Amino acid sequence: MSVKVSDIGEKELVKYIIANSKDITPDDTAILPVNDFNLISTCDMLIQSRHFPENMSYFEMGFKAVTVNVSDLAAMGSKPIGFLLSIALYRDLEVDSFKEIIGGVLDACEYYSIPLIGGDTNEASEIIISGTALGLCDRPLMKDTYGKDDLICITGDIGLAALGFNLNTSDNIYVEKALKPKARIKEGQILKEHGATSATDISDGLASELYEIKKEGFGFMIHEELLGISDEYKKLANSLNLDYLDLILHVGEDFELLFTISKDNLDKLPIDFKVIGVVTDSDVVEITLENGSVEEIKNKGYEHYVSK
Amino acid sequence: MSVKVSDIGEKELVKYIIANSKDITPDDTAILPVNDFNLISTCDMLIQSRHFPENMSYFEMGFKAVTVNVSDLAAMGSKPIGFLLSIALYRDLEVDSFKEIIGGVLDACEYYSIPLIGGDTNEASEIIISGTALGLCDRPLMKDTYGKDDLICITGDIGLAALGFNLNTSDNIYVEKALKPKARIKEGQILKEHGATSATDISDGLASELYEIKKEGFGFMIHEELLGISDEYKKLANSLNLDYLDLILHVGEDFELLFTISKDNLDKLPIDFKVIGVVTDSDVVEITLENGSVEEIKNKGYEHYVSK
Repeated sequence: MSVKVSDIGEKELVKYIIANSKDITPDDTAILPVNDFNLISTCDMLIQSRHFPENMSYFEMGFKAVTVNVSDLAAMGSKPIGFLLSIALYRDLEVDSFKEIIGGVLDACEYYSIPLIGGDTNEASEIIISGTALGLCDRPLMKDTYGKDDLICITGDIGLAALGFNLNTSDNIYVEKALKPKARIKEGQILKEHGATSATDISDGLASELYEIKKEGFGFMIHEELLGISDEYKKLANSLNLDYLDLILHVGEDFELLFTISKDNLDKLPIDFKVIGVVTDSDVVEITLENGSVEEIKNKGYEHYVSK
Repeated sequence: MSVKVSDIGEKELVKYIIANSKDITPDDTAILPVNDFNLISTCDMLIQSRHFPENMSYFEMGFKAVTVNVSDLAAMGSKPIGFLLSIALYRDLEVDSFKEIIGGVLDACEYYSIPLIGGDTNEASEIIISGTALGLCDRPLMKDTYGKDDLICITGDIGLAALGFNLNTSDNIYVEKALKPKARIKEGQILKEHGATSATDISDGLASELYEIKKEGFGFMIHEELLGISDEYKKLANSLNLDYLDLILHVGEDFELLFTISKDNLDKLPIDFKVIGVVTDSDVVEITLENGSVEEIKNKGYEHYVSK
């Protein structure tokens, strides 16, 4: 019987590509040494039925397409220099909706100080927005260059988008984060300058990212009480019959940065962040729950919220 | 009544984006001055139902996705430095077919000496391959920097792919060109070094490209007898009830370079090429037919062969 791509999953497909290309850096972006600096580049494709919730506006679709790409630059501590846009639209889309998408793209480009330098338009059966973000960086911040006892930290709050995808209301921080996430581009550059030992962005959920950055012989101990989960969050999740910890660990789409730093460099860090755990040599990804018990965090892998 | 994107067409959509972004160079690629050189970047998305004929193999799809992007670098005279791949697949695609696509991408990357440096995989209802090609260039060859009396030339042959799309046979130069076109990356660099005054690649048909590079006050006179149309070509087109000149002027997908050069620099050019016309100040795009009559070439615009 023939094996289908859905049988093996996206991560295995990516692994196959990496294994067959001698030039791919398995990190958040590609890194190309050019003269005396590094050209940082990354591309991400967003597909309407898969990445855009039904209540997302056209403007927000455009904004998000920039955010997901710029977020990868942020994870490297890179300065953005240019954005390329390939967009496919269905024939019956209203021109005004197209203009709203482009408005969102341009607004995001201005927000991140990354010029829209080129692109391509196309026709498809649904909206597809493929972006490429380009940046420069002297010493890119890799995702797995941490050491034992480094502290594991995140910028901002985690899990807000995960909850937002499940709420029908609007005008709250959860839905705002789900529909219009922001990349931490300035924070990434500050982290690089202030001694962070590694960084990646949280696009696929905290658990998935921890497994993504895990290297042999190292483990992570996360502490639930450090995750900053509010009572409101727990209550809202509960009212939706959702497990709040599941939302926080396994959904993602926050585009916050997950980074590591030594205790010594922590005090000097001029950004908002939370310490959520520590790098260990246990070779296990685990969490100390609020009740004191320790559990292994499972690598459920990323499942897009709309493909349920 | 609301206006749909299909009512105004792709070219108008692109014009809207360019008019609203202050940072887009309206040429084959984006040009970003970085330190003492120019970073050249371009992205192009290929969609199965729109860009891949039914008899195209998975390997050829992958190869073509690289070619269409590298061809834009070729038109600038740029040296390629990296390729990024965003690919979306449908769930039931066999893993072996996926591997063939990647094989085609990697084979093309090797052929053009452009390393595959990164990418992204996704799920969609059909195969979508979005590529980004990156290159370097000291003095990019622009598409409209020609002068009056410059000669209009093309690399290789024109119209072969156009005929190939209509043939059911295989193993002939027409179908080969339709299914596995090659970008003229070396020729582009040679043209830049040997005094070509402008260049663009023929992706959208000769007529469409001539209108694309036309600037006010300048015109082009093409000579049919210089296009190198063989008797076999005319006969095959005729047997298919197709107008051979229509195929040559209005289909494209050849990925040959259309360039201009002064008479003085012509003899020193170490590549295969054909002079097909001359830059005039007539402000009209016209052709002298084999029978001696002169006709204006219409700008029919690009229509993908599969969208008929």
